[in-house]
Amino acid sequence: MGIERQIEDKAKQIEALLKTYLPKEEGYQKTVLEAMNYSLLAGGKRLRPMLMQETYRMLGGMGHVVEPFMAAIEMIHTYSLVHDDLPAMDNDEYRRGRKTTHVVYGEDMAILAGDGLLNYAFETAMKAFDSCIVDEIKLGDRYEMVARALKVLGHKAGIYGMIGGQTADVEAENKEESLTGEQLLFIHQHKTAALIEASMMIGGILSGADQDTIDKLEKCAYDLGVAFQIQDDILDVIGDEATLGKPIGSDARNGKQTYVTIYGMEQAKAQVLKLSEEAVYILDTLCGDNQFMKELMTYLIHREK
Amino acid sequence: MGIERQIEDKAKQIEALLKTYLPKEEGYQKTVLEAMNYSLLAGGKRLRPMLMQETYRMLGGMGHVVEPFMAAIEMIHTYSLVHDDLPAMDNDEYRRGRKTTHVVYGEDMAILAGDGLLNYAFETAMKAFDSCIVDEIKLGDRYEMVARALKVLGHKAGIYGMIGGQTADVEAENKEESLTGEQLLFIHQHKTAALIEASMMIGGILSGADQDTIDKLEKCAYDLGVAFQIQDDILDVIGDEATLGKPIGSDARNGKQTYVTIYGMEQAKAQVLKLSEEAVYILDTLCGDNQFMKELMTYLIHREK
Repeated sequence: MGIERQIEDKAKQIEALLKTYLPKEEGYQKTVLEAMNYSLLAGGKRLRPMLMQETYRMLGGMGHVVEPFMAAIEMIHTYSLVHDDLPAMDNDEYRRGRKTTHVVYGEDMAILAGDGLLNYAFETAMKAFDSCIVDEIKLGDRYEMVARALKVLGHKAGIYGMIGGQTADVEAENKEESLTGEQLLFIHQHKTAALIEASMMIGGILSGADQDTIDKLEKCAYDLGVAFQIQDDILDVIGDEATLGKPIGSDARNGKQTYVTIYGMEQAKAQVLKLSEEAVYILDTLCGDNQFMKELMTYLIHREK
Repeated sequence: MGIERQIEDKAKQIEALLKTYLPKEEGYQKTVLEAMNYSLLAGGKRLRPMLMQETYRMLGGMGHVVEPFMAAIEMIHTYSLVHDDLPAMDNDEYRRGRKTTHVVYGEDMAILAGDGLLNYAFETAMKAFDSCIVDEIKLGDRYEMVARALKVLGHKAGIYGMIGGQTADVEAENKEESLTGEQLLFIHQHKTAALIEASMMIGGILSGADQDTIDKLEKCAYDLGVAFQIQDDILDVIGDEATLGKPIGSDARNGKQTYVTIYGMEQAKAQVLKLSEEAVYILDTLCGDNQFMKELMTYLIHREK
């Protein structure tokens, strides 16, 4: 089976899992629950839970303790899109061919649905504390492991992670001055790579990996996340509109600075290659069956859409 | 020393503690950090951390494990105000005599600052896991205790707590039909009482109290929270404008339904009395020196501003 098909199959499995964590649409707060579920089920590659699960498996993780965290990271990714699409932010009316949450439910409900998703992500991740009892690992150790994973989730999603990158991105758009390479890297690293790092690190932590392995996973995910984002910048210039499913050149039209406008196409491509080789090299230093992870990463970095 | 003066002194101490948990205003994401700190330091009674700390003390809690949670609950309360004030929500330009966050920093930064505060609240609360080492309690037990407190925080702040109440409130304002008594109670209970419940329950959990005590604290906090909110509705009708520092009758002018419009003034006052007596009665069934807690609760419920 080709890698694209494998990814699709796994995404479907993850979506089924995600559905088991959705809130029931009932009660006086029903509307916000509907808006949350609408946003969560709007499709998407389910890339972050997939990387988490595959890292967990690769390093020998068994059992279900990773599952609440898989749902949680997708909820955090989703809330960031819901708030990002708001009129006061990017003001997007469509995402993946569907109307955005605030268009369907109103701006007030979209703000609350985003808040609800972020809060519920932590609530969901905490359910992993209750997976403790069914495992052979000592209760105290398992609590400590889940607590470490929770800390990584909080850190990488917050002001020193994704929200930090989001802020720098919004600021860059509001300002006249041109972006430095350092600022752009900060944005790519925090807005995109941070949640990828959280995904792989949490997969590692819950599999029982040691700190050295977690550090390697963080670096590997950083490489993947930044390469993914530079590839995005490249595709906006040379991509095939039919394959991409969206018009190319939108960054240039919006006067948006990208890795390509700052460093040029040649260096952008060289950087993607360098980061991608480094990521695969790091994977090779880890134990376990890393074949799918390597194929997934290569696919993501060198994708044409 | 009178109760008002005691409350003021304690609020000052809590504010000093809160300051030690604020993020440093530096880095490419500096603006969101400034907006967060601006919102957190906008004054306020610091009622939730005060109730948490006093419950903890009353039940014999020692050490510092409660402090990260005190900061966390104030961050959650603050983020809810920042998002509540947004143009798409209540569209308030002033709060406690200061410009609201979106007026000073822009709507986009206010959305991000709210998200940042909510996320950072969980990050901050998780610091309590690291208080474990300095205490005489077994590591595993302490982890479990902090995990229980975290779960309560998440539940009471989320879609089955504060966000749920917020949603029902927004819906009620958007709709033409009049509110039922049940709906209004749902709003008061979730929007206001839920975080009060979290405060007292977490104070209890971290002091090592048993489940029966935690259940009593939840009920006591529910009574306090709902009574507090009904008193708010009463003061909007019969309060003294000079004492309140805001015009009375604003609910009526906005066509807003309150406990008073639904049940009448007499029953509203009777309900406040009933809830307040019940709350004090529950406090009396608990061990520990509850004098300050009783005075604080009586003051809050029967306040004139």
